Amino acid sequence: MLAVSLPRLKDRLLALARFGALPGGGVTRMCWSPPHEQARAWLLGELKTAGLTTWVDPAGNVFGGLGLPRVSIDAPVILTGSHIDTVPEGGILDGALGVIAGLECLHAIRESTTRPPRPLAVAAWSDEEGRYGSLFGSRAFCGRLDAAAIATMAAVDGDRLVDAMGRAGFDARRAPEAAAPRGSVAAYVELHIEQGARLEEAGLPIGVVDSIVGVRRTRVVFHGQADHAGTTPMERRRDAFLAAADYALKARDLVVGRGGGRAVTNVGVVHVHPGASNIVPGRAELVHEMRDPDPDVLERLARDCEALAGEVAAARGITVELRPLSATLPAPCAPRVQAAIEAACASLGLASQRLYSAAGHDAQNLAGVTDSGMIFIPSRGGRSHRVDEMSDWDAIERGANVLLHTLLRLAA
Amino acid sequence: MLAVSLPRLKDRLLALARFGALPGGGVTRMCWSPPHEQARAWLLGELKTAGLTTWVDPAGNVFGGLGLPRVSIDAPVILTGSHIDTVPEGGILDGALGVIAGLECLHAIRESTTRPPRPLAVAAWSDEEGRYGSLFGSRAFCGRLDAAAIATMAAVDGDRLVDAMGRAGFDARRAPEAAAPRGSVAAYVELHIEQGARLEEAGLPIGVVDSIVGVRRTRVVFHGQADHAGTTPMERRRDAFLAAADYALKARDLVVGRGGGRAVTNVGVVHVHPGASNIVPGRAELVHEMRDPDPDVLERLARDCEALAGEVAAARGITVELRPLSATLPAPCAPRVQAAIEAACASLGLASQRLYSAAGHDAQNLAGVTDSGMIFIPSRGGRSHRVDEMSDWDAIERGANVLLHTLLRLAA
Repeated sequence: MLAVSLPRLKDRLLALARFGALPGGGVTRMCWSPPHEQARAWLLGELKTAGLTTWVDPAGNVFGGLGLPRVSIDAPVILTGSHIDTVPEGGILDGALGVIAGLECLHAIRESTTRPPRPLAVAAWSDEEGRYGSLFGSRAFCGRLDAAAIATMAAVDGDRLVDAMGRAGFDARRAPEAAAPRGSVAAYVELHIEQGARLEEAGLPIGVVDSIVGVRRTRVVFHGQADHAGTTPMERRRDAFLAAADYALKARDLVVGRGGGRAVTNVGVVHVHPGASNIVPGRAELVHEMRDPDPDVLERLARDCEALAGEVAAARGITVELRPLSATLPAPCAPRVQAAIEAACASLGLASQRLYSAAGHDAQNLAGVTDSGMIFIPSRGGRSHRVDEMSDWDAIERGANVLLHTLLRLAA
Repeated sequence: MLAVSLPRLKDRLLALARFGALPGGGVTRMCWSPPHEQARAWLLGELKTAGLTTWVDPAGNVFGGLGLPRVSIDAPVILTGSHIDTVPEGGILDGALGVIAGLECLHAIRESTTRPPRPLAVAAWSDEEGRYGSLFGSRAFCGRLDAAAIATMAAVDGDRLVDAMGRAGFDARRAPEAAAPRGSVAAYVELHIEQGARLEEAGLPIGVVDSIVGVRRTRVVFHGQADHAGTTPMERRRDAFLAAADYALKARDLVVGRGGGRAVTNVGVVHVHPGASNIVPGRAELVHEMRDPDPDVLERLARDCEALAGEVAAARGITVELRPLSATLPAPCAPRVQAAIEAACASLGLASQRLYSAAGHDAQNLAGVTDSGMIFIPSRGGRSHRVDEMSDWDAIERGANVLLHTLLRLAA
């Protein structure tokens, strides 16, 4: 039975982990940054070494093809992939696993005598983590990019997408041209770490994703009044940071209390202006994120939080402004892909369970243009988006073999 | 009766306001930054134009002398001054007024037939606003600089003092050499805007400062756990930012509730790490500032806040670390200087009242080495440390004339 090479897979994962490596472990490799662009160049070399055809589209997505020169309607492709960008101070598997395992699957097939009837390809989607725009590359590939918004897309620190892509040699305005022809992708399946603790706690090696949560991000800006922090009487201050602090604590309680058990929320970005110890904060900005697998719950929570922000600001005599940053709809996975994963597991003697993904993934964009699905493997301690994110090497090998046999079934 | 020239004073204040000017008014001119260094060069030119001798000491303090080449024990000087650095997005008078009015007083005396028995000088103290270290220049001049701490002094964004001074052409390690010989300063008086609303509300043109508040700054660092903001269950998160938010709100209530009416507090610097919307904050840093004119109250509040930080962290299963950044003791002003100011007011027919300063000032360092005092003029709406900080031009003229006649009395 065809199988991946764990030594080769491991070597490549560790080689990729060197781009943007941090002294204490983990990586910071944000899309379009120098370490990311070096990793992209390295990946193109590995894809060629594996005997695959390679191409890069105008959204910066990198492809390696087996039996095809590029995505085309003439020979609909069975696609796998993930991403090689990371969050700041992230781990070495989030995204990297799906790309390197996909490459390994195609490498193993190419070296074998197996010749699948359909062409196969592996993709590394750009900016999955959404430094400049959530799931950017797969959104472009799936024709979901709003061309008019590209000029204003920017990172939380203000760095514009057009500048970041420009520095990496891309023209952001051309990114919508990455849209694949309708019907050119026959199916999509992505291997990823779970990033939670459900599989580990259940003692199961494989998760079959049945749906992916929607994620809403909103910039919440409190406008108070900058004043001297010594001479302004306490009762006259209109402190934007204290309002932001109040909102963050209450919004957390609101989402936990009214979210029905699956909703989660986070405030991970906070900026206080002008940012001096002796000045009362005149402006405080938060990025407030919420996730739920049910679109109605997400919509209701967003309305409740907007009302809450208004109440908090009014109670403190200041104003607040909410600017939507991104909103993805929860996405169901295709029954055909789930069935193929489960059949692959059965053929390998591996138990599995269905679960929803609490993280957003490129597979949710692919779900809009083809049958899309995901394979999860356990994360040690459920840890992810941190430098000690890891999975056991035998869990990685099992996941890669499930991906291999899922691809072969879908390509049959 | 000798008087300042308001047109010349106004021209120079507006000329200085151009260095680091912001499009919507106000200035950002932080010590050692390019706009500050340009302003320093301009000031040296103006001092020379006024016929004063000039020198710059190793702490970056700029002096203009009338009747002396530099500070010396042989001819104890009557000193005035303030600072030309500003907070970010600050006003055009905080500091600048005291320097430019001091220059104008010496210019007016030099042009007159008056020859005071004692030498006079005006100083622009470096980094009063404490970007790298609170009241840095006057601390160095008064021999209060901890030489061992210089290597580690840094701005809240991590920029080190040695690097900032190096870029401006100074060697930070030599700053302690700025210490003036004991007995070389006969008295110090500083003109400043009140930065509060007490004089305006009382309808009085002049405030005679009787004491200056102490200011304590502490870096409060909450250490939680960075985690994936989608997949980590809410009840397992150890969110450092929510702890910081909780602390900021409770510390404000503690200081207001237990501070005895005069204590004020501020959290003006907030940094959240790693700073991505999809990562639970693993670390959150605040700079917590407190002020009170009573050293015992300040000490008690600092202990209470430290206990509060520990309680907040423990309740959330995380840890907290408190690092003292700076602490100035409340400083009394010299009765002799207060009397000289009041006599000057009387000779000019101006009413005055005594008040304490709710802001820290270089005069508090000078109080350790000589008779030190301050003159306040009203601030419009009590506004300061903001771009619309301003005082009426006739209030500025009155304050400068009070400074002129106070200097003449002290130098008699």
